[in-house]
Parts: sequence; structure tokens; C-alpha cells
Amino acid sequence: MKAARIVKPKESLEIQELQTPKPKGSQVIVKVHSSGVCHSDIHLWEGGYEGPHGLFLKTTDRGVKYPLTPGHEVAGTIDSLGEQVDGFSKNEKVLVFPWIGEGLCPACRNGEENLCDNPRSLGVYTDGGYAEYVLVPSYKYLVKIDDDLDIDAAATLSCSALTAYGAVKNTNLTPNDNVVIVGTGGLGLMAIQLAKAITGSRIIAMDLDDEKLKEAKENGADNTINSKKEDPVKAIMELTDKLGADAVIDFVNASKTVETDMQFLRRRARLVLVGLFGGELKLSLVSMPTRAYRLIGSYTGTLSDMIELVSLARRGVIKPIISNRFKLDQATEALTMLKEGKILGRGIINP
Amino acid sequence: MKAARIVKPKESLEIQELQTPKPKGSQVIVKVHSSGVCHSDIHLWEGGYEGPHGLFLKTTDRGVKYPLTPGHEVAGTIDSLGEQVDGFSKNEKVLVFPWIGEGLCPACRNGEENLCDNPRSLGVYTDGGYAEYVLVPSYKYLVKIDDDLDIDAAATLSCSALTAYGAVKNTNLTPNDNVVIVGTGGLGLMAIQLAKAITGSRIIAMDLDDEKLKEAKENGADNTINSKKEDPVKAIMELTDKLGADAVIDFVNASKTVETDMQFLRRRARLVLVGLFGGELKLSLVSMPTRAYRLIGSYTGTLSDMIELVSLARRGVIKPIISNRFKLDQATEALTMLKEGKILGRGIINP
Amino acid sequence: MKAARIVKPKESLEIQELQTPKPKGSQVIVKVHSSGVCHSDIHLWEGGYEGPHGLFLKTTDRGVKYPLTPGHEVAGTIDSLGEQVDGFSKNEKVLVFPWIGEGLCPACRNGEENLCDNPRSLGVYTDGGYAEYVLVPSYKYLVKIDDDLDIDAAATLSCSALTAYGAVKNTNLTPNDNVVIVGTGGLGLMAIQLAKAITGSRIIAMDLDDEKLKEAKENGADNTINSKKEDPVKAIMELTDKLGADAVIDFVNASKTVETDMQFLRRRARLVLVGLFGGELKLSLVSMPTRAYRLIGSYTGTLSDMIELVSLARRGVIKPIISNRFKLDQATEALTMLKEGKILGRGIINP
Amino acid sequence: MKAARIVKPKESLEIQELQTPKPKGSQVIVKVHSSGVCHSDIHLWEGGYEGPHGLFLKTTDRGVKYPLTPGHEVAGTIDSLGEQVDGFSKNEKVLVFPWIGEGLCPACRNGEENLCDNPRSLGVYTDGGYAEYVLVPSYKYLVKIDDDLDIDAAATLSCSALTAYGAVKNTNLTPNDNVVIVGTGGLGLMAIQLAKAITGSRIIAMDLDDEKLKEAKENGADNTINSKKEDPVKAIMELTDKLGADAVIDFVNASKTVETDMQFLRRRARLVLVGLFGGELKLSLVSMPTRAYRLIGSYTGTLSDMIELVSLARRGVIKPIISNRFKLDQATEALTMLKEGKILGRGIINP
Repeated sequence: MKAARIVKPKESLEIQELQTPKPKGSQVIVKVHSSGVCHSDIHLWEGGYEGPHGLFLKTTDRGVKYPLTPGHEVAGTIDSLGEQVDGFSKNEKVLVFPWIGEGLCPACRNGEENLCDNPRSLGVYTDGGYAEYVLVPSYKYLVKIDDDLDIDAAATLSCSALTAYGAVKNTNLTPNDNVVIVGTGGLGLMAIQLAKAITGSRIIAMDLDDEKLKEAKENGADNTINSKKEDPVKAIMELTDKLGADAVIDFVNASKTVETDMQFLRRRARLVLVGLFGGELKLSLVSMPTRAYRLIGSYTGTLSDMIELVSLARRGVIKPIISNRFKLDQATEALTMLKEGKILGRGIINP
Repeated sequence: MKAARIVKPKESLEIQELQTPKPKGSQVIVKVHSSGVCHSDIHLWEGGYEGPHGLFLKTTDRGVKYPLTPGHEVAGTIDSLGEQVDGFSKNEKVLVFPWIGEGLCPACRNGEENLCDNPRSLGVYTDGGYAEYVLVPSYKYLVKIDDDLDIDAAATLSCSALTAYGAVKNTNLTPNDNVVIVGTGGLGLMAIQLAKAITGSRIIAMDLDDEKLKEAKENGADNTINSKKEDPVKAIMELTDKLGADAVIDFVNASKTVETDMQFLRRRARLVLVGLFGGELKLSLVSMPTRAYRLIGSYTGTLSDMIELVSLARRGVIKPIISNRFKLDQATEALTMLKEGKILGRGIINP
Repeated sequence: MKAARIVKPKESLEIQELQTPKPKGSQVIVKVHSSGVCHSDIHLWEGGYEGPHGLFLKTTDRGVKYPLTPGHEVAGTIDSLGEQVDGFSKNEKVLVFPWIGEGLCPACRNGEENLCDNPRSLGVYTDGGYAEYVLVPSYKYLVKIDDDLDIDAAATLSCSALTAYGAVKNTNLTPNDNVVIVGTGGLGLMAIQLAKAITGSRIIAMDLDDEKLKEAKENGADNTINSKKEDPVKAIMELTDKLGADAVIDFVNASKTVETDMQFLRRRARLVLVGLFGGELKLSLVSMPTRAYRLIGSYTGTLSDMIELVSLARRGVIKPIISNRFKLDQATEALTMLKEGKILGRGIINP
Repeated sequence: MKAARIVKPKESLEIQELQTPKPKGSQVIVKVHSSGVCHSDIHLWEGGYEGPHGLFLKTTDRGVKYPLTPGHEVAGTIDSLGEQVDGFSKNEKVLVFPWIGEGLCPACRNGEENLCDNPRSLGVYTDGGYAEYVLVPSYKYLVKIDDDLDIDAAATLSCSALTAYGAVKNTNLTPNDNVVIVGTGGLGLMAIQLAKAITGSRIIAMDLDDEKLKEAKENGADNTINSKKEDPVKAIMELTDKLGADAVIDFVNASKTVETDMQFLRRRARLVLVGLFGGELKLSLVSMPTRAYRLIGSYTGTLSDMIELVSLARRGVIKPIISNRFKLDQATEALTMLKEGKILGRGIINP
């Protein structure tokens, strides 16, 4: 089979001809139809990301090994099944849950494999979906998708939408809350759709780009703030009767955005940090108890969450936005475009 | 009536002769029997506390007005009642909930007056218990205490124990968790008792003082670490099979302790910040999502929490530790001793 | 002032001329603009309702005293205020929370006054809104409403919508759930709107009347079942891949409906019982643990819930349906029409 | 290998010589050291249990197939491992989680396999631990136990203690609650230990037998009621200031006990039903909403719960009570003694 692989960080991906894997035990081989192109693939490609104090955090220090076939947003059809597989059959259309854990830590035991102590995520620690076939270690990581659901759209549910959904859930919103969504790229827009669908909160979208804010409004934001054109703290205070935001979901999570977030939090506010942009926050420790703030790191979501997203997408309650499609040999081009901010919704590779 | 008042920050408290208040509507006048001496009284006395960037946060900027009678841990007997008071009668023994809110914000509406947008806490924004009598704005802030419960011990339930309890609840512990209690003064010891009584977690106490750690063990800690004598990060890692702590409650909440805490957190860990010591944390933003950390500011507790504490204390499940008793005219001495670290459990003023 | 009062059960209400109340302490007098006509007012009028074993449960045995001015869904303007009232002023438009408790039981302390051990509900245990003025015992039971919100619509939020909302919250729905709403009268329709707005679940409406089911669909139901025309158990099984319903909210709560509900519950299902129709269920005890069912009684909602409803209604997320308006001297007529099923949305008295 | 098998309901178990299973994929063969004897084994042996309306619910109608090796409380050592097993090695001491699901239903996806739509429980739907070896379908159902924990005691954690723990968790207790434990056999005693360890509630034990109530007190009950000697409703009312119980856990769950429970419930009470005794309850439907009751069926617990129990037992926080030990060929005798009420703690078969 063909696979687009990162052989060495920062170099173009190589199209390699690999042995198509064979399933054993509970394993399943999925023929890849759609594989999403994600910002975190860029970190894999670059070999790391910016940490605090100007440090570069290397992916190899976190257990990533090259050459690697990236791709963790995978949907396709079942090609072959190990002898212990139950409940699936050849040619069924499936979505893969990529946030696989080792299975024995408290997070895994509790249905939160995405937060495993020793993660084995597909397309990160094992070969992923930038390939014609992918080996899934157990049928338990598969979710059937039916013809109501576009397969490219389905693929985005396993990371892009899932990360937005995990963040919205962690924010614990009620209808009387004012929630600020910082960053209205693909994840931010999906978070707006999801907050609209299941919280009843008032949604305030914040970005630097009027075009994106217009889209935020179309996706359900009640108010928008262009933080380049107006003072975001003042704007939030005006919208909230000088009380501040009850909750913030920051999809950028850079020093600058979070420093600003901290200035418009209401007492008891939840600040949910999602983005991997990096940088540092100088946090006033005494304000944590006196203001009763909660800073919550949110990382993707659970398999149950992904199943809920499939249900929402099937019924049209949420609408993933696919903006670009690529062939397998365009993988480097896809990553480059994403890095340069030229993909507005989600890019998909169709091998 | 007599009251010990802060007339000017940093000067000795004055014993003043004031008009004994008369109750109207739903108000109640309580004859003070016991009034706890709390670290936050020192902040009132000093006129503020250390904020980030070396700033001194003035109490007057937060709405405190002098002269002020401090004292928010108050137990006593009912002296007189307004005409709308219901369910209480003269001479009944009561504990006062001091974390009074304005009543109309979402926190107040939801039974979380301690986190009100515009707090009116007794002994902070209004005259408190360093006096012979105290005016309580509504009988709804009173909880009856019976003869099973020592009245001095009862007083400490409204702040010292309540803060420990709120923190333990915010930590959301289960029996398979390793929780580190940082700082084993009065609050830390009570948190150990409470975690022992209602969580089933393994409790690791951390302090700089072997004497206090010995007491921590007697109060229920499973393990102790003297962070002056051994490397706390290494010690935690050894106790937790190199996994790190599932949760930390930091009753110091200073730069140094929290920086250390951050180094021994397990993925998914909750770090609950309680102390008002102050200072800054340089927080690596990317670690928040990737490690799925939660930083939770915890401030006192609710009226329901306080009622639960009364129930626990009555049945001897928890045992508040009273170490020093003072007369009203010793208020300055009491605050001085507390500031100098000479009060090991809780000091009580008996006017 | 004028009031429409039940002087003796089952007799026509009398229009009496009463002394307009004067506020003391924290009390407020509200000039009634809108007072909803509720099914439970019929129970007050009839002096009781059907219990199990054919018993008639008398309202007087539960502490109701006649003559009584009914009316617990009250919106109006502030007429006068006691001297301890804070944060409100004359002529402000307000909605009254009628589910007032005695204030000292665990439910009250916890913000759940609607579930007080000794309730003092307005219009049930004290004189209510079928009058020109109503005495509210504390300003804390008032919520301001602004001009975005129709005052008649606002009135229905304190009972009709609140009961639907409490039920939806108690059902604990997620987007992958199939929820059955049994009974699509005013409460059922509002529950459909609310489930649509904040849960993402698939909503199946069940009733005996095609006209009402059509309205259910317009209010957001995904599927409808006319249980007079088709076998409801078979229909639910077909809609749910033979798994059964994850949750049911029964707004009728009669023997017949609940017996049917029990036959289409999925393992782990929640069955939320709301209606006051009465009767008995023969419950197979062994099925409770083996099937892990939850039967949940749901009674109105909290003050915080009501505030959330005000927020949702203001922003047009939910739309209360007012179908009939009456003058004060038409109170008997209003109750009669409601009893005879001639009011389809909500009837409002405008004194 | 030898196994004690139910060949035909109600006949003596046969000791059969079977092929020792060989592991494939993620399967593990455990050499059985301890296999608990459970009341539900009696239902398997008798071929069913009493349902409502005098019906006999046959186990074969629920998918049980004979001949069957019962035994779902299994601890032992690892004998051999399939090639996909990870994290375990030969001779390690392990406890088996028997409440295995098919893996794809919402309960399974969420870490609640014990509540699977299509359960495959070990010792119920597949051969269990009344044998020298048992086949466990995946290493993910194993939990390591170390030498701090007696292996016979460990075995009881997977059903007896787990059922008690699931029930205590479902009761959602706080320190101000009065909880009644109905039935103080093995499960009831463990529930008392657990409620003592993690809730802070006041525990009232109820039984018909003074000897068992004495033991209840020694295990942590605050009060005891012999419902044969005194009126249980009156007794509860006296102990609770005429308010009633906040919660009840009924380990008998027969018509008679539950009818009595319903008479001493406080408003908002949770009634948790655990026992499989059977029978019917005539439930007054209107009391469900007006009293805001919750009837909660509780069935065993999750794998995470079992891990928490292992942690509690290791540290001596709970102490399982083993009263009888049997050889494999005494299996019929063990079941007979249990049925006749002659086993007071837990009986264990050591093959």
C-alpha cells in the first residue's frame, strides 16, 4: 500500500510503498477514504512545538518515532478483520477513534482513553491515516457511520469536532452564562455550533478577522468582537453589564490571548484552554481563590463523546465544514497550506 | 457593647464602646461567645496583601471600610430577633454563616453566597465578631448547634474548617487517588481529617516542619514528606509509582509551593489553590491541554457545606483543634501571635 | 384591592374586596399584570386530587386553607417595598418565584426551595396572583424582566416552563439519547422546546391527538407517535433499533401511561414522572436492579432554573405559548375551560 | 481441568473434566485460587427467580445456557496469555472483573460494561470460576493485586463488595444525610463499611436479627433498628426529627421491605434498590413528583469502581468478611448452605 510519511522532521513527506498490514486477534484493517489534516500534524512534521521559556519541546522526547505516517482523523471501510472481532463486517463504513490508550490506567478504565498516562494515539505514536490502509488495534475503537453522514465530514468528528466538543463539555455551561469563544477557526466554529446546540448560553465570538467573525455569527454566535479593532476587555464588560464572562474557551491559548482572557473573567469563571500555540502566563496566585477561577486544560474527547458527535452530525444538528480535498501525494502541500493559514475549514486527504 | 476594632491599618485594635444593635425585619442579634482569629484578619489589619508583580493589594480598594470590627468565625446565643424572624428563639445556641452575599447574583441564587459578585461578608465588609454582640442580617444565616458540640469548636466551622471542606470538595477525590496536602497548619490538618472521613483517598501531607507532619499523621495522613529535607518531586514520584499526584490541595499557594506542585502532577490532575500567600506562577500554557490539568481556586464554602460540617463535628467524625483562647482586649495580641506563627491550631476570642 | 378567591372547594370563585397589603422588612408588593392559570389550581379549586387505591387526597390535609386567592404564575410591577429591600425599585417589571420554602431545611439551604420540607408556595399556602396585588415575602424571590420579554409570556416561566425545565434537567440527556415526551400539552411542548435547545437528544413525542402531535413537531420533536392509533411499545422499539428509550418524561403520569412507559425502557433508562394525574403502578422490583432503571419524580424547578428560563425566553430560544387571556372576574370561567381541555397553550388572567 | 458445573437446574453440580482453555489474541487464562459463592449463583442453579405477578423468570429466557460453570467472583494467578496481551505476565496475582459487555453499546463505551445491553458476564453467560482455570476474554478485565491483599478477600471485591459500592455511589450521600441500610447480610455490612469510609453520613442499619445488627454496629452503623421488634417507620421518624430518611439502600428489595421504605422517606429521598428477592410494589404515582422521590435500581459496579475497592481493601479501609471455605467438589454443599442462610459473611471455593 501507499503511505505519505514523515521520514525526517521538516522535510517533505515521502510517498512510500509499504506492506499492507494483516489483522490479528481483535485488530481491524480499515481502507482509508478520508483522513483529516490537523494542526497537530504540523507539530509532528516540525518535530516539536514552542514550550515555556522559549524551549522547543521535541516530539521524539514524548515518544514519537520517525518515519511516521501521520493522520489521526480517519474514516473509511472495513477491509479485513482479526478472528476475535465481533459486531463488524467487511465493507462497513466506519469512523476510527484515534485517541487510543494502553488500557490499564485509571483514565482508560474509566472511558477516558484520550487522557491515558501512556497514550498510543493513532497517527501520532503508531502509523495513521495518510495511507491507503490503517491498522486499528481493536474493533472497539470503531464507530459505524451510515449513509446519512458524508464520510469526509465524519472524519473530522474524531479530532477537530471532538476537541471542540470536549472543550464545550468541560466548560459546563448553563443558559444564563455568557461564554467567550476565542479563535474562530475550524475548532472555534464547531464549538459555536455545539454550544448553540446543547447549552443555551449566550455565545460571544472573538477573533482578529472580520471575515471569520462573520462566519462565527452564521454558525450561531450571538455577538462578535474583533479584538484588533476594539478593546476586548471593554467590549466584554459592556456586553455583560460589567460583570465579565462566566466562561471562556480559548482555542489559541497563547500568552497574549490568555492574558487578555484573565482580565474579563467574572468571579467563578471557567477558563478552558485548548490551543497548542504555547507560551507562558504569569498567573496571580491569590486571585485563584479570591476570584474562585477555574483554569481547565482540555484535550480532545472520549469515545462516547465521538459517538454523540456522530449522532448530532447524522441528524444535521452540527455541520462540519470541509474546505479542501487533497490526494495522498499532495500531503506536503496540504500541511504547507494549513501552516500558512490557507485552509479555512478542514482539509481532507482522500488516498 | 464593647468591640475590638481596627481603626487604622497596622495600629493596635481599639476597644470601643458601641451602641448594641437592635434587630429589624429578619435580622438577629447574636451575643458572641466565640470568635475565631483567622489569617485573613491579619490582611484586614495590615490593610492588604501581596499581589502579583510585587503589588500591594489594598483592602480599601476591595470595599473594606475602617474603622472595622473584624471576626467572621462567630458562635454564640440569640439575644434578640426582628419581627420577621422565623424558626429561632432567644437564647438558642447558633453558629453564624459569615459569607453573606447581596442575594441576587447567580452564585447567591444557587446557594453559593460565598462566591457572590458583591460580597457583604460579616467581619470583612460589615462589623463582625470581635465584639460582645453581632448583627446578623437574616436568620437564614444561622445554624443551630446543640450541646453535643463545643461552642468554641463550632465557631471554627464557619471559616477554618469550611475553607478546608470547600477545598476537599473541589478536589473531587475518589478512593484510588493520591492527594497531596501542601501545608499542614490548621486548615491542612482539617483537610486531612475531612479527606479521611469522606473520600477514601490516600493522603500525602507535605510541610517543612516535622512536628506538624507528625500531627498530620495523627490526623489521618497516610504518608508525609518534609520538603525541606527531601526533594518533594522525587518523593511524590516514588510514592506514586512514577505517575505523580492525582490531586493537590495547596494551603500555602505561594510561587514556590505551586511551582513545585506543577512538577509532580499526574496527567488529569486537579491542583486546588487555597492559600492567600500570594505571588506569581509562570504557567506553561501548552501543558494545560496536553496534560489535561485543572487549576481550581477554592474560596471558603457554602452554607450547606457548613451545615454538613456541623453534622460531622457533632458526631465526632471531625475534631476541630482549638489551641489558644483570648479575651476581647487581647485581640491585638491574638493577631500578633497568629502572624508570628505562634498559634498552632485555632485561636478563639471569648468576649 | 380585588381578588378572585376560592371560598369553598368546587364553588365559583368570589371576587372579594380585600385590604391591599403593606410591605415590611424585606417584603415587596407586586401589582399583578399577568397571572397564569395552572392545572394545579384546579386541584385547589376541587379541594384535592386522586391518590392511590382510589383515595381522594384533600388539599386541607396538606395545609391549604380556604378562603384562598390562587395564582402562582405571577408577573407584574413593583408597587411598594419594605425598608430592608435592596436592589429593586418602584415600577420595575418583575417575575415572582412562587416556590417559596421556610428557608431552613436542607433543600432551601441548597437553593432548592421548590423541594422544601415545609413549603409556603405563593398561591397555594398563601394568597397568590388572582388579585390586583400580591405580597412577596422577600425581594430575593423576584427576577427583573426587561422589555425584550412579553410580560404574559414571562408569567408562565415560573411554573409551566419551570416544571418542564426541571423535568428536562432531571432527565440528564445527552446527544446520543432517544427521549420520549409523553403528553404534548403546554408542558410537553415546552419540554420539547427545551430539550431541543439544550440537550441535542432525539425527541420522540407521544400523545393521543394528531393535532397536538403536529404542534409537537413544529416545536422541535424529531418523531411523533399517536398511541391511540399505533402500538406505542412497538413504535418506540422500531425507532430505536429494538433497544428502547434511553429516557422518558411523562407529563401525564397516570397508571396507563406509566405502565406503557415501563415496556419500552432501555437498560439504564431514566423515567421522569411529572404529571399529577394520579393512580398506581405495579412495579416489578427485581427489574429495578437488573435493568438499572431510575424512576425520578420531578417537581417544578429552582429559582436559578427560572432565571435561566428568563434568559432563554429573552433571547427567543424558547417561546412560551399564550392562548387565552381573561379578566379577574372570569377566573371561574378560566378554570372551567382549562378543566374541560379547552385551553391549548396557557391561559393568563390580567387583573 | 476440573470444573463444578450446573448441568440441569436444581440438580447437584457435576464435577467434570474439561479441556483447559488456551488463550488467543488478548485473552488470558487465570488459574483460579478463589471463587466466591454468590446468591445469584442460586438463581442460576434454580433456573430462574420470582418475578412480578407470581411469574417465574427463567434464566434460559435471558440467554443463560446449560451446562454452565458458575462463579463470577474470581481471583487467581495468570497461567497463560494470548499474543496481544500487554502489561501482564505469567504468575501475577489478579482479580477478574466479571461484568463483561459486548463492548459497543453506550454503557460499554462509557466504562459501564456492567450495564451492557447484551451482557456476557463471566460465570453467567460464559464459564466461570467454579473450576481450576478460567478464560478471561481480555487482559483489560484484570486488575493486579499485591501481597498486601488476601486473595480470598480480593475475590469478593468483584461482586459482593462491588454491588455494595455501586449502591452506595448511586445513593449520592452527603454528611448531613440519614441513610437507612435495609438488610445487614454480607452486602449490607460492606455497604455500611463503605458508607462509613467515604460519605460521612449517619448510618441506620435495619434488619430482623439482633445478631446481625450487632455486627452492623461493629462495622460502623450509628444506629440500628430491629424491624421485627419495633415499628420501623416510627423508629426512623424518631431518629430523624420526624423528617424521614434522606436515603435508603434496600439489599432485600422485596414487596414488604420496599413498602415499608416508602413510608419513611423524606421529601427528595433516594431509594436505591439492590436485592433480587423480587415481588411487586404498588407505587402511588402522584407521590413521585410531589415528594420528589428517586427510585434507583443499582446493579453491581464498574471496573473503575472495582479498582477503587482494591485500593481501599489494600489499605485496610474496608475489610471483606470471609466466613466459609470450600473445595471444588463441595460446590453443591456451598450453594445449599448459602440458600439455607447458613453462610454469614462470604463463602469461597478454593479449587
